[in-house]
Amino acid sequence: MIESELPVVDFHPYRWGDPAHPAVLPPAATGALAMLGVTGAAAPLEPGAVTLPASALPDAAAAALVAVVGSGHVRTDHDVRVAHTRGWSTPDLLRLRAGDAADAPDAVVFPGSHDEVVAVLVACARHEIAVVPYAGGTSVVGGLTADRSRFRGVVALDVGRLDAVLAVDAVSRTATLQAGLRGPRAEHLLGEQGFTLGHFPQSYEGASIGGYAAARSAGQSSAGYGRFDEMVVGLVLATPQGTVTLGTAPKSAAGPDLRQLVLGSEGAFGVITSVTVRVRPVPAVRVYEGWRFATFAAGADALRALVQDGPLPTVLRLSDEAETAVNLADPTGSLGSSPGGCLAIAGYEGTAADVEARRAGATAALAAAGGEPVGADAGDAWREGRFRAPYLRDPLLDGGALVETLETATFWSGLPALRAAVTAALTDALKAQGTPPLVLCHISHVYETGASLYFTVICAQATDPLAQWAAAKAAANAAIRAAGAATSHHHGVGTDHRAAFAAEVGPLAVDVLRAVKQVLDPTGILNPGVLVAPTGED
Amino acid sequence: MIESELPVVDFHPYRWGDPAHPAVLPPAATGALAMLGVTGAAAPLEPGAVTLPASALPDAAAAALVAVVGSGHVRTDHDVRVAHTRGWSTPDLLRLRAGDAADAPDAVVFPGSHDEVVAVLVACARHEIAVVPYAGGTSVVGGLTADRSRFRGVVALDVGRLDAVLAVDAVSRTATLQAGLRGPRAEHLLGEQGFTLGHFPQSYEGASIGGYAAARSAGQSSAGYGRFDEMVVGLVLATPQGTVTLGTAPKSAAGPDLRQLVLGSEGAFGVITSVTVRVRPVPAVRVYEGWRFATFAAGADALRALVQDGPLPTVLRLSDEAETAVNLADPTGSLGSSPGGCLAIAGYEGTAADVEARRAGATAALAAAGGEPVGADAGDAWREGRFRAPYLRDPLLDGGALVETLETATFWSGLPALRAAVTAALTDALKAQGTPPLVLCHISHVYETGASLYFTVICAQATDPLAQWAAAKAAANAAIRAAGAATSHHHGVGTDHRAAFAAEVGPLAVDVLRAVKQVLDPTGILNPGVLVAPTGED
Repeated sequence: MIESELPVVDFHPYRWGDPAHPAVLPPAATGALAMLGVTGAAAPLEPGAVTLPASALPDAAAAALVAVVGSGHVRTDHDVRVAHTRGWSTPDLLRLRAGDAADAPDAVVFPGSHDEVVAVLVACARHEIAVVPYAGGTSVVGGLTADRSRFRGVVALDVGRLDAVLAVDAVSRTATLQAGLRGPRAEHLLGEQGFTLGHFPQSYEGASIGGYAAARSAGQSSAGYGRFDEMVVGLVLATPQGTVTLGTAPKSAAGPDLRQLVLGSEGAFGVITSVTVRVRPVPAVRVYEGWRFATFAAGADALRALVQDGPLPTVLRLSDEAETAVNLADPTGSLGSSPGGCLAIAGYEGTAADVEARRAGATAALAAAGGEPVGADAGDAWREGRFRAPYLRDPLLDGGALVETLETATFWSGLPALRAAVTAALTDALKAQGTPPLVLCHISHVYETGASLYFTVICAQATDPLAQWAAAKAAANAAIRAAGAATSHHHGVGTDHRAAFAAEVGPLAVDVLRAVKQVLDPTGILNPGVLVAPTGED
Repeated sequence: MIESELPVVDFHPYRWGDPAHPAVLPPAATGALAMLGVTGAAAPLEPGAVTLPASALPDAAAAALVAVVGSGHVRTDHDVRVAHTRGWSTPDLLRLRAGDAADAPDAVVFPGSHDEVVAVLVACARHEIAVVPYAGGTSVVGGLTADRSRFRGVVALDVGRLDAVLAVDAVSRTATLQAGLRGPRAEHLLGEQGFTLGHFPQSYEGASIGGYAAARSAGQSSAGYGRFDEMVVGLVLATPQGTVTLGTAPKSAAGPDLRQLVLGSEGAFGVITSVTVRVRPVPAVRVYEGWRFATFAAGADALRALVQDGPLPTVLRLSDEAETAVNLADPTGSLGSSPGGCLAIAGYEGTAADVEARRAGATAALAAAGGEPVGADAGDAWREGRFRAPYLRDPLLDGGALVETLETATFWSGLPALRAAVTAALTDALKAQGTPPLVLCHISHVYETGASLYFTVICAQATDPLAQWAAAKAAANAAIRAAGAATSHHHGVGTDHRAAFAAEVGPLAVDVLRAVKQVLDPTGILNPGVLVAPTGED
């Protein structure tokens, strides 16, 4: 086995950040946590000390997989299995920190080509082995937690070796990217040709192209660059029944848009091995600025005015009062003596002329809507920290806090009520358990007709933090459903949201998805239990 | 039965325009047609003289339908059946003009509510009656020609009574429109509240909201307003198995985007009874201007520069040399003494400031790309005639010419070769039959990564014009497939494109669509033969 061919495990399996450079809580946070009753917790088990279940992969299955990908690319060693156990949600982290590796795959398979992916799936179907498609491994909704009950074993299919830019069409401004390319490397390779994808989800440093596609990722610059599902013009899907290749033109009326059926299928229909995406020239100029609004409602109206009437910034977001106050408590923050309110970020990327024109128009509109400019420092602070906020989960969990996020979306007219209802549901559910929370919220993505809401919840860990969070999450889901809002705006369904998703779309739509899966994956090996329950279960 | 509740049949069943105000060929066209060898043909049969097959609707089925919608809303009279026979393609017109009404429905049912639509479908499933969902009836790809071979009869389900605006959300800028609303009436009702859909396909005067959705319509202002599938944020689908309601937010990551599976399903999965769409304020200013480019390639590059780097006009299209020359031959045209080349139209709609800013930027870009401004007259002439060009089919067919259109789309880098290949395929196929054609082409819709091509073909009718066109169309389809381009950009699949569509997406994707249909329509009554062949056939 050639060591350099292996994917590098960039991240500690149950820490978001690099454990060699741990995130540190700002001093002011300590006081805030004390007010929530957060006290120190036991240190987590180190990964090497986690006890793994013995690999259950039958010898015949292992031999069949080795025959496809070579012995060096079927891994059963402890570190690789631990690193492919579940994803990045707080419950996932808590389980692994406590030594619970029950969902570890029996082996991790690293195919080196699309054809090898198909062959791996065919072999697994024959040997009754469940397959967890694994790109960046950053799911926060249990998208990597397969139900192994009907199978003789489970393997993670890591697409990390599929990490090439297959083609760049500079005239059409498209690029064909393999699924295992991580965000930063994709940007680096495209940048060498003068292009950018412009897709920067919070998981950017860990997530991969295949995951962006399979989970309908939305990046922080979505106002300007669109969501990932809006960037995809073509894709190749490997299934146990063969290959599906979609995308002959940007748009078509030849039947339903089957690309949009594969995007968001979360590995349950097949393994997306490459996508062709729209790219844009690397922007010459980037400007990010902060704005303060007296109230969340005033800020939301300002964002709505920009997305409905223009000009539209590339980045547009708004923190509520609570989130703004926490930002203010951060001594590295740059709002100085700003007296509260709600912080908005407006960012512009493009040519100098384009940035200047949009910035001038948006500045006038934001000011007219009651916004007070707080300068580029606030914008730059947001930009510098935008991938790092989640890393604070590590010291927070270490310190005995429970911290988790969730998100939803709805139409503008329902946004204020949705925010109030979800905040109340989370607060009430955690108060009832004796752990009153801090609930922060921001508008993370805007559309002409609506927007998404992103919630961050922090409280003291109860004795059983998994049960504690499950109750809070159930209350939030119920509030979202009652408001008729989306089960998820960009995190996906996974296993965590499966019931909520089924309630959202209804039983007939769930049957449609099951029928699609049945055609592409008749033995049900692909991510069993993710997206939809197996036929007959719910 | 209250007469005013019935949908008005606005159009002669086999004429695009109003037969009371027939379109007249411009004098210059007569000379051009003579050069193509076009000579006068026999006048078509009048609709009243068409002999219909006797209605085969079993009494029990008729009784069941009457029980759902009332006796006045189950029609078997001659005129209503003829008016619901097939669509608006040239082959459809030729068949009916010759008295061939073999595809006439046995009855036409006019349900008055979503629940009645579901009940009609349930009744038809029980009585083994095929159902052709009928909105505007403007399909040009055989989307209304059901295969009745497995059924005891076939009814057209006309959604014309579902013609209300159910809701307008002025904050979110959405409107919920019923399927039977025709384009002009939808615009009128939205306009009363200050909004526009901005959707103007060439079939605008006849087509309906439900058809826009079911066939993935694209309007002539798509550069500014988007395609219809991009406007839809929610929909309600009636199926024999019940109702599917989709769309809780503008965008979601909760699974695949099932809205995009229903859009483009062409009545094969269910009847879309209402959609919720994004609307925009009625523009204060509208400006349309003509530009002349020396070559099609230069014009295409100019359009590409605008859609990739901005600013983007609301309307953007480019005729090739042949189409421009025909426009010039039109004495009502306004290009004066312009010496050929290729005519582009750039249109701007919005607030005065927005139009001024975009027009200034686009004007500079078009000039920099080699464009020569030919003024607002050319733009206004295009705008005035934009829905009327198809009406010329009536006098052309009357005069013995064969005239038909087809369209496709691809990425920018492949566009010149695609245009050349399809033009050559059509020319060669018709020359081989002794009827050399005039082949006109324009770019009708632009995207960052590609564009659509719209072809118009005119030649003398052969003895069997249906076979003549079938050969030409097959040649065009083969050229499109060989180029890897889209089977259709906005006309759809219907029955005419079914084989080409299956070749485009491959057998596994076709099986997926069949499986979806099987769940929603287990007895296969919905538009049988449209979109996909019944299982076991192809």
